[in-house]
Amino acid sequence: MIKVSIIGASGYSGVCLLHALSSRPDVAISAITSQTYSGKKLSSIFPQFTKTYHINNPISELEFRVFDPDVISESSVVFFCLPHNESSKLIPDVLKRNKKIKIIDVGADFRFDNLEVYEEFYGKHNARSLNSKFIYGLSDIFYDKIKNSQFISNPGCYPTGALLPILPLVFKGVADFNVPIIINSLSGISGAGRGLKLQNLFCEVENSVKAYNVWSHRHLPEIKEKIENAFLNSSSKSDNKPYILFTPHVIPVTRGILTTIYMNLNKGVKEENIKEIYNEFYGDSKFVSIINNIEDCNIKNVIYSNNCHIAFEPDKKQNKGMIKIVSAIDNLGKGASLQAIQNMNLMLGLEPDYMVPEYSPFP
Amino acid sequence: MIKVSIIGASGYSGVCLLHALSSRPDVAISAITSQTYSGKKLSSIFPQFTKTYHINNPISELEFRVFDPDVISESSVVFFCLPHNESSKLIPDVLKRNKKIKIIDVGADFRFDNLEVYEEFYGKHNARSLNSKFIYGLSDIFYDKIKNSQFISNPGCYPTGALLPILPLVFKGVADFNVPIIINSLSGISGAGRGLKLQNLFCEVENSVKAYNVWSHRHLPEIKEKIENAFLNSSSKSDNKPYILFTPHVIPVTRGILTTIYMNLNKGVKEENIKEIYNEFYGDSKFVSIINNIEDCNIKNVIYSNNCHIAFEPDKKQNKGMIKIVSAIDNLGKGASLQAIQNMNLMLGLEPDYMVPEYSPFP
Amino acid sequence: MIKVSIIGASGYSGVCLLHALSSRPDVAISAITSQTYSGKKLSSIFPQFTKTYHINNPISELEFRVFDPDVISESSVVFFCLPHNESSKLIPDVLKRNKKIKIIDVGADFRFDNLEVYEEFYGKHNARSLNSKFIYGLSDIFYDKIKNSQFISNPGCYPTGALLPILPLVFKGVADFNVPIIINSLSGISGAGRGLKLQNLFCEVENSVKAYNVWSHRHLPEIKEKIENAFLNSSSKSDNKPYILFTPHVIPVTRGILTTIYMNLNKGVKEENIKEIYNEFYGDSKFVSIINNIEDCNIKNVIYSNNCHIAFEPDKKQNKGMIKIVSAIDNLGKGASLQAIQNMNLMLGLEPDYMVPEYSPFP
Amino acid sequence: MIKVSIIGASGYSGVCLLHALSSRPDVAISAITSQTYSGKKLSSIFPQFTKTYHINNPISELEFRVFDPDVISESSVVFFCLPHNESSKLIPDVLKRNKKIKIIDVGADFRFDNLEVYEEFYGKHNARSLNSKFIYGLSDIFYDKIKNSQFISNPGCYPTGALLPILPLVFKGVADFNVPIIINSLSGISGAGRGLKLQNLFCEVENSVKAYNVWSHRHLPEIKEKIENAFLNSSSKSDNKPYILFTPHVIPVTRGILTTIYMNLNKGVKEENIKEIYNEFYGDSKFVSIINNIEDCNIKNVIYSNNCHIAFEPDKKQNKGMIKIVSAIDNLGKGASLQAIQNMNLMLGLEPDYMVPEYSPFP
Repeated sequence: MIKVSIIGASGYSGVCLLHALSSRPDVAISAITSQTYSGKKLSSIFPQFTKTYHINNPISELEFRVFDPDVISESSVVFFCLPHNESSKLIPDVLKRNKKIKIIDVGADFRFDNLEVYEEFYGKHNARSLNSKFIYGLSDIFYDKIKNSQFISNPGCYPTGALLPILPLVFKGVADFNVPIIINSLSGISGAGRGLKLQNLFCEVENSVKAYNVWSHRHLPEIKEKIENAFLNSSSKSDNKPYILFTPHVIPVTRGILTTIYMNLNKGVKEENIKEIYNEFYGDSKFVSIINNIEDCNIKNVIYSNNCHIAFEPDKKQNKGMIKIVSAIDNLGKGASLQAIQNMNLMLGLEPDYMVPEYSPFP
Repeated sequence: MIKVSIIGASGYSGVCLLHALSSRPDVAISAITSQTYSGKKLSSIFPQFTKTYHINNPISELEFRVFDPDVISESSVVFFCLPHNESSKLIPDVLKRNKKIKIIDVGADFRFDNLEVYEEFYGKHNARSLNSKFIYGLSDIFYDKIKNSQFISNPGCYPTGALLPILPLVFKGVADFNVPIIINSLSGISGAGRGLKLQNLFCEVENSVKAYNVWSHRHLPEIKEKIENAFLNSSSKSDNKPYILFTPHVIPVTRGILTTIYMNLNKGVKEENIKEIYNEFYGDSKFVSIINNIEDCNIKNVIYSNNCHIAFEPDKKQNKGMIKIVSAIDNLGKGASLQAIQNMNLMLGLEPDYMVPEYSPFP
Repeated sequence: MIKVSIIGASGYSGVCLLHALSSRPDVAISAITSQTYSGKKLSSIFPQFTKTYHINNPISELEFRVFDPDVISESSVVFFCLPHNESSKLIPDVLKRNKKIKIIDVGADFRFDNLEVYEEFYGKHNARSLNSKFIYGLSDIFYDKIKNSQFISNPGCYPTGALLPILPLVFKGVADFNVPIIINSLSGISGAGRGLKLQNLFCEVENSVKAYNVWSHRHLPEIKEKIENAFLNSSSKSDNKPYILFTPHVIPVTRGILTTIYMNLNKGVKEENIKEIYNEFYGDSKFVSIINNIEDCNIKNVIYSNNCHIAFEPDKKQNKGMIKIVSAIDNLGKGASLQAIQNMNLMLGLEPDYMVPEYSPFP
Repeated sequence: MIKVSIIGASGYSGVCLLHALSSRPDVAISAITSQTYSGKKLSSIFPQFTKTYHINNPISELEFRVFDPDVISESSVVFFCLPHNESSKLIPDVLKRNKKIKIIDVGADFRFDNLEVYEEFYGKHNARSLNSKFIYGLSDIFYDKIKNSQFISNPGCYPTGALLPILPLVFKGVADFNVPIIINSLSGISGAGRGLKLQNLFCEVENSVKAYNVWSHRHLPEIKEKIENAFLNSSSKSDNKPYILFTPHVIPVTRGILTTIYMNLNKGVKEENIKEIYNEFYGDSKFVSIINNIEDCNIKNVIYSNNCHIAFEPDKKQNKGMIKIVSAIDNLGKGASLQAIQNMNLMLGLEPDYMVPEYSPFP
């Protein structure tokens, strides 16, 4: 039996984790924490859990509690779903009590190799010495490193949608870095979390769309570091380092991210080469699919799932090497909680898709 | 291995059935039919099925075919998801070839005891002699009759949302029929199906709400017959037969039905009595829950699930016996495909909730 | 030139008033107040006003200020758009400085004849002696009293949608009060205002619907008092006083209220009689229309306007006298700011529709 | 009195024109045509027009008719709101009867200088000899040419949103054409018109987003031609011709286009220079505004209006000359019907903003 705790279980990604884990016969939820709701029954706050019975312990009877390292350290796996700079305060206390506990941080604290960059965007880091132990959990790329590991930093939602289509092309050295890579992302509102902000009210969001933090979003340095790392590990002989532009937008949907990418390919790289590269990387993946028709690569088709759909089309007419790539994910599924479960599976030596909910309801 | 066929698999309820069945290791999908898409691969029409692998046969490789009774009769269970008056044309041909085949009709053809009423609303019936073999599959009420049965008519979506809260009160004789029972229902657009109608276009539906067929909706006689039957089988001594008003509305959500019911209780019936009655009927149900707070009884909390949430509040101030009851279901889940699976489970002697997806994503 | 002030100009109804008044050449906006935004330029908070030029003073250059009775009392007309129990604190100070100033209270403070009922639902009243001076501004019914008056209490949004269809039938004595009148209302989210509440977040509201305050909503006693008054002034000989049930729901649209009403008519009252009654009351109204087809009576068709659409259909089959009536309004237009302008016109001796924006965009 | 006809008055842009013109005392609607609805009263098809009275002729009494050049040629101004290749069939017949009639083609037939390009994307042109008489009606840029002209081709919706921010920078020679100009546009569903297509059903659109026609959309050559023309008329000394990438997406809103533009500026061009250029072009425009905060430049703030909001932000950190520009318009307002009225005003020698509805409702 895998004893699991969820720290910060009343936010959107915490609740999604609970949902997804609730049907597993091999998992027992041992603790869920929430500062706001401690002492309250899960189903009194989230009535959709009424009569949800976990095979091992009744989900609907679970109670939120405050974080207590003594309790949490009795779990085998702990998921942290907290605002940044919080998990790095708590994890050391848990590790002191249980050195072998497996940790998946859904937040940003351990996503960066370069802590200078982290601190520029997120402020002072609370556990610098732990940082290098964490592996970046982009599971469909880095599964070998994730397997049987103890510490995973779960990728950001925008980075997941951007890196899955881009990294293979960078690793394989087919990207031309003389032209900027442009990442134009459209995210559902749940990406902003459950906090009370004027800009997240229904009447402000509905029937509107906007760009925000167009040069300064925190996910830009995360995307950049991972692309630069791939570039350094690639066969590319480009002199230019990648120049990456990232523009997040919010659109009036609850879940999902559509990412439209503009990049240039090296001379001579053909459509078939791209197909082959994606096939090499994702042919065996249960979750990443190449979709032929770019219109079919939409949010509706991946929502509530751990899937990432990718479609691409090069500029055949003007023959200048530009390619457009579109990817679709669910920001709370693939972009957070379900990728976290995929990571848990790998960490435990299970198949990556073991009991990951395969649910993309239609319509 | 349960061999299952779905007739009319490209409509909303057919696709939902496919989704829900795709994760069952004990089910093999043997045929899916569609007139529009016959010859096409499922995943070419519904790309969300790309890389969806069924443990027994790969869902994503399934192909739509035209209906062929020879092929279909090889299944153990057949779901019919067709417009009315269609299944009743096809079922006799299947039965000729396989007398023991289990049939679940998601459509309306066999929902009525009284064929006169059926024909008034739906036109000439195509298989009158078969009609009496069918059991009305409101599973959380009629599970005893459904168990091990061969023929099930799956209830309409509005009737499911209305009958689950009303029938227990009628059976127990606490409803006062001197005052009309008013059923005010709000349905998501998917209830209208996937047909091309001006009134279902995004721009016509979004930010609007309307009532329709306010005296003549086809689900009214279905609701009426089941309430009248319950009345006749009840301990009620009322002289008045039930007078039922039903008003359907469409609201700009994709899935879900919220039903607000106004009825009068007999003198002396108290809030606790209602609680007890519901507890007697649904205490053991995995799917029907009584929700304390009427605001928590909303569509968000039951969407994509087979759950029905019910909340009620009597008029404590004016003390005239009126009670308001609200129920929430997913019209495609509890109101169609997932209740159909619950019925299949019962027909096969399985637990009603055996592998019924328990998924109510949030947000 | 009509000098107008708006108190509480940064809420939804305040902004709508500003919009609607900004195109009038006969109006000069002299002051807009907001506690939250005092000192800020209107267009810095509401960028849609950038480059909106009023013929008399440039709207986009307006600045929010704190309420100051000396300044406000220089206006000819003041609109109060405040939470309840606020306007009644401020109005006496304004009146001390300007006895002839015309006041339209968009809030609830002066809507009740019976202050006992007011205080039961809203708490202690702050200006009881002023209360009787106010006329209830349901303009399409009470225009005669409103004409040239000084004090108007603008009706609530739900009451407007309910009373416009019901009052004529009560005044004319055709309503049967032995059966309860049921008012089932569906409101857009803007009805809840611009406050920061979890339940108004996009992700909580979208794709959901719920009922709330089903026996205790503050608009129930308002509806009740006006129907009872009409009953007392009617030719009805019923012994029963009206028994009214009102159930508000929120639906995922920004603006609009659809009200579905169930009532019983006295024996012998025919469809034509209802038509005649409505024609007598609304034949000359520019804003209230009888719509033949109940499906056409929807929110989309009245949104952003001061129109009220009404459709009705009696139960022709069972012949028991029940009638269903549906009305559609924009909660911020007819249900608040545009009706307030209609009232201003009447108070100033203008035509009721003088420069009331007649804008119901489609789609 | 300006006698106006609208050809194709039952589509979204036709209806919007009707709405906007209905409040003008100087306009009389003399004919509205519709093949689908000929013979029907406007208000029977669009009930929102019930009781909409035009000062000169009652809008709600208008009747759709079939196109008849004898009738239409009696107007002073004719708007054509037809699918492409239709207006060019009809206009010659009208001109034969009335040589001075003013024509505004809201469709694509006369938008191109280069008919080869037109025919590549739209098929054979029906009135080549007329083409050169038409002026491209991007009114806030080409007002001098439009003034007192007889023939206007109203720009496409995407081109309007893209060209208003881009053209000034091209005319002024500050754009660097060594880097591609990337135009990433997000459009509301009404852009697809009122036709019955599966992809426009509420259940398919809601909670989804997709890119489409990513290299082949018909608005690309329109955007391209106008930028190239500006380039040729500019002070730019670039050797490279502009290379333009345009990617349209549909988002689940009814109206509105948000366009995110990525381009490179020539060395030494500073943020202030951009501000000055925009101020030179749009300082006097009533409709185009520069918004400081990019988040404030959203669809909600321009919807239902003839406004275009533009915000921009250069890459200050990496200092490579890239700039991001965002523009927001209403696709049916500024992108179609309201710009058409602005053009009509200019053609008639009126102020461009004369009675153009200034309505951007909030929320």
